[in-house]
Amino acid sequence: MQTLDAIGRQRVVRAFTSEPLPDDALSTILHAGRRAGSSKNLQRWAFVTVTDRETLRRLSEVGPWCGHIAGATVAIALVTPDPRADGSPLSIMWDLGRAAQNITLAAWDLGIGSCPGTVYEQALCRSILGYPEDHHCEYILSLGYPVDPTDLTRPLQPGGRHDLASMLHEERW
Amino acid sequence: MQTLDAIGRQRVVRAFTSEPLPDDALSTILHAGRRAGSSKNLQRWAFVTVTDRETLRRLSEVGPWCGHIAGATVAIALVTPDPRADGSPLSIMWDLGRAAQNITLAAWDLGIGSCPGTVYEQALCRSILGYPEDHHCEYILSLGYPVDPTDLTRPLQPGGRHDLASMLHEERW
Repeated sequence: MQTLDAIGRQRVVRAFTSEPLPDDALSTILHAGRRAGSSKNLQRWAFVTVTDRETLRRLSEVGPWCGHIAGATVAIALVTPDPRADGSPLSIMWDLGRAAQNITLAAWDLGIGSCPGTVYEQALCRSILGYPEDHHCEYILSLGYPVDPTDLTRPLQPGGRHDLASMLHEERW
Repeated sequence: MQTLDAIGRQRVVRAFTSEPLPDDALSTILHAGRRAGSSKNLQRWAFVTVTDRETLRRLSEVGPWCGHIAGATVAIALVTPDPRADGSPLSIMWDLGRAAQNITLAAWDLGIGSCPGTVYEQALCRSILGYPEDHHCEYILSLGYPVDPTDLTRPLQPGGRHDLASMLHEERW
């Protein structure tokens, strides 16, 4: 898929078929995340992949809008140093967003949908995934083939984003 | 360019030719940022584009590693609500990272390089760009055609990123 098509047509997918992802697809997707640029090239991210159905079900309870994780084919929990620690730079979450966008665009290119879920129950998420106390998981990505395959090709509805003019300032605010 | 090639080959470009960007290229790049997903679809970002050479020179002084902005063809200052305000969610910077990755990948697809610069001198940046007191600019993207056109095609050096194995955990940390 052409880059501009992937960017222009990407939509969130929350319902997934039972078809497994090929191993090389997951590897391609993870490498896309790994390739992202980061502040001072620090690469402050780790990926916990989850395919076990019971673990996915438990992860779906870490936030009020995480239900989609229960039906994901694979979830990728994005783990970073604690972004709320004293003196923690804003770049941790900015870099993670850049890596996540690479991950979801690479998936989309392969016909695989994704949806991010925000973790509200940090202690529960840590108990399920086992990452260290000084680490944090703010987002979990669900991935899988869309139940509705037209998700991949259906034109986006107008109005889903603000007009460019409303967010654009030329030379000065 | 194919999506996976854009993701896999993207590198930072800090030195730009004097060739202007076509208007439709800048529009394509900005729309790519506009298209990014965001938490609750809040789209908490604004883009200030700068092409005036003297303004670019002044912006190059907002941080110790912002020198590349002086030579940018276009800079895009990324403005958000204050991410350090009380109760400000981590999603502001995560969403901005996702939008920025769309911007830089769309540019790359068009043969246009980019480099992010971190703003250290917030008051100076605000005085130059004029955004409101309750807004914040943490990053400015420089864009332009690379002085060294082989930047776009030269294979990446090995070792620029950690091995995937070092950041990957399967099922549990």
